[in-house]
Amino acid sequence: MSSYPNFKFDIIFKASSHRGRIGQITTPHGTIATPAFIFCATKAAIKGVSPSEMHAQGTQIILSNTYHLMLQPGGEAIEKMGGLHKFMGWNGPMLTDSGGYQIFSLGHGSVAEEIKGRRGTSKRRTLKRITEEAAEFQSYIDGRTHILTPEKSMQVQHQLGADLVVVLDECTPFHVEKSYTQKSMEMSHRWAVRSLNEFDRSNDGRQAIYGIVQGGVYPDLRQDSCDFVNSQPFFGHAVGGCLGKDKIQMKEIVDLTLELLDPHRPIHLLGIGNVNDIFNGVQVGIDTFDCVHPTRLARHGGALVKAHHWQDLGIKGKEHINLRNQSFQTDSRPIDETCECSTCQTYSRSYLHHLLKAGEILVINLLTVHNVFYMNALMSAIRKAILENSLTQERKKWLHEAEN
Amino acid sequence: MSSYPNFKFDIIFKASSHRGRIGQITTPHGTIATPAFIFCATKAAIKGVSPSEMHAQGTQIILSNTYHLMLQPGGEAIEKMGGLHKFMGWNGPMLTDSGGYQIFSLGHGSVAEEIKGRRGTSKRRTLKRITEEAAEFQSYIDGRTHILTPEKSMQVQHQLGADLVVVLDECTPFHVEKSYTQKSMEMSHRWAVRSLNEFDRSNDGRQAIYGIVQGGVYPDLRQDSCDFVNSQPFFGHAVGGCLGKDKIQMKEIVDLTLELLDPHRPIHLLGIGNVNDIFNGVQVGIDTFDCVHPTRLARHGGALVKAHHWQDLGIKGKEHINLRNQSFQTDSRPIDETCECSTCQTYSRSYLHHLLKAGEILVINLLTVHNVFYMNALMSAIRKAILENSLTQERKKWLHEAEN
Repeated sequence: MSSYPNFKFDIIFKASSHRGRIGQITTPHGTIATPAFIFCATKAAIKGVSPSEMHAQGTQIILSNTYHLMLQPGGEAIEKMGGLHKFMGWNGPMLTDSGGYQIFSLGHGSVAEEIKGRRGTSKRRTLKRITEEAAEFQSYIDGRTHILTPEKSMQVQHQLGADLVVVLDECTPFHVEKSYTQKSMEMSHRWAVRSLNEFDRSNDGRQAIYGIVQGGVYPDLRQDSCDFVNSQPFFGHAVGGCLGKDKIQMKEIVDLTLELLDPHRPIHLLGIGNVNDIFNGVQVGIDTFDCVHPTRLARHGGALVKAHHWQDLGIKGKEHINLRNQSFQTDSRPIDETCECSTCQTYSRSYLHHLLKAGEILVINLLTVHNVFYMNALMSAIRKAILENSLTQERKKWLHEAEN
Repeated sequence: MSSYPNFKFDIIFKASSHRGRIGQITTPHGTIATPAFIFCATKAAIKGVSPSEMHAQGTQIILSNTYHLMLQPGGEAIEKMGGLHKFMGWNGPMLTDSGGYQIFSLGHGSVAEEIKGRRGTSKRRTLKRITEEAAEFQSYIDGRTHILTPEKSMQVQHQLGADLVVVLDECTPFHVEKSYTQKSMEMSHRWAVRSLNEFDRSNDGRQAIYGIVQGGVYPDLRQDSCDFVNSQPFFGHAVGGCLGKDKIQMKEIVDLTLELLDPHRPIHLLGIGNVNDIFNGVQVGIDTFDCVHPTRLARHGGALVKAHHWQDLGIKGKEHINLRNQSFQTDSRPIDETCECSTCQTYSRSYLHHLLKAGEILVINLLTVHNVFYMNALMSAIRKAILENSLTQERKKWLHEAEN
């Protein structure tokens, strides 16, 4: 039976007009005020931003990807270097995923597209075989064949040493029959039990494990999967699997899943990170989110801005501006005059535009810093709004009406 | 007659056993303790490092390139944004070059190779014509023809607003007859007078101008050129032109040039930045150096280290280690245990090796921070050693015997 002597999830406040809540996750590397956003340091690094800068922007927790790290430099190498926290210089709470996401992503196409119900065919398929025992895949680095079992995933995650770890599941593709989704879910449940057993075998109190809810877009399967995870001694739960073909269906699926999950455990929504989706998520009780969106957007010149900015600029239904746009060439204002991030305190849109045009990598740092600060400020504002019962009004500050 | 009401060069101490000196250059944006190193922010950005990080590593002064900035975003655009200091968020002393370096570099091949006497033929030739009036060249961005006159260079540098500006000269190629070098030098002198006149026309006390010594590898021409710059009301002098075919000849040329220059003005050595060359330079009285070397080296995985490190590693005659080297894969030590930079305080060689292998751009930031700190620590140690008459002993701490 799994136990988590050094972990705790406290619900501090529950909203009355919706299912949102404020909580606190305690880990050996510090506490996380929830709802919180988890930033992706895929290969043990936030692209272009140091851990101390991430911390300075109010970041509570980051995640790294087991898939990438098991291939290079390898779990054993990181363990030898003192574990992931020490290796990458991040002393706060950290999560690793199971590795499954990338295997199935690179296998089926893009998981991001799968989650959103679009068929991705452009990516090279590197998933070779899924059996009851394991997933067999080719390394994205050198093409060599690797096998990932639930046990192996837990072993690597133990070597990495993140605070929060996740069971290995099959990330079921969207464009399959219900019967495939069901079989896949049932196998994921068996893999989850194997993951838990392996976790228990080496549990030294440094880690806590999350189960994953599957079941695709089918309410009865979601019910089965929620019943399953609730019955297992997980520390927390993550909502996985296909969330439907569009935002409306995603909202429905997340909504119904959250009604079925044990509310005493922290609940994570996998791979979702638009501002709109976050507001929808917190309202039904999601505690943590992760997504590459804010950091990836920055690398493409995008800066997250509040509703009034894109109303000013005549942009509807977007959550960001793109600094590559020629209109910013002689714009001496910061990205956001009201933003307190170091980028907005120092640099103009004009300068950021210049850096993008000149191909200067400093811009990745500056825009990522802004987007990270923005997401942390968003989550902080959301926590405050839940407490003050003003989530609907708060939402309007961040999102254009069209998206509300 | 040029005047510099807001600038000053004070010689604080002169060594007795060599020609090295300690000084202070006062500018409207602060003072520079000399000998000092100037880092290259070519396109108004240090590649991958923010101004505040540059400052935190002890940086006193940076430079930007007029050539790049006049083409994109343009001097006028930067002036409209409040000048280069404000545009890029650097509040300390700053220098701009004349633009000539890159025009002739891209024109003749690589100027770095020219300085070192090697013929560079691999680069696309974009210099179209040099006349008494101007240099005509093609933009590296869109191939359009541009003309740079001495007056235009000063106008753009005035728009940029750096503290220290430099006259336009022809960077004479190495593989030419003495007669070409002489004619080129004489034209550069006439361009220098035109530069001074244009400088005076708009002089508002915010800037001070450096003349450039030409004359190639010919002592009599160096004498003529030193006589010329000494006779003109420059604030400082820069040693330019071809410095010979190897390090020995370069040392000779710099040595004889420094004997001929007015010692009361600050003297800059253009484009030189190896540790060995810096020790040679300060001994004959060079006050400032600039080079892309420390920052470019970082982008290729190189970290500057003191002599004992490469003795440990069995590397001779080098000033850096390359973190790409497989031997660092499981090396848990920092680049340099005795280094106080934030990179060495936090990260292992193993982690930096991983980032390089994974193509994570964070490594550019981390290695550049180290190399910038290293160069500033070097210059600080050199200043102390000049004062304490221990430059020879200091040199041995930084350089392997083979290079001394």
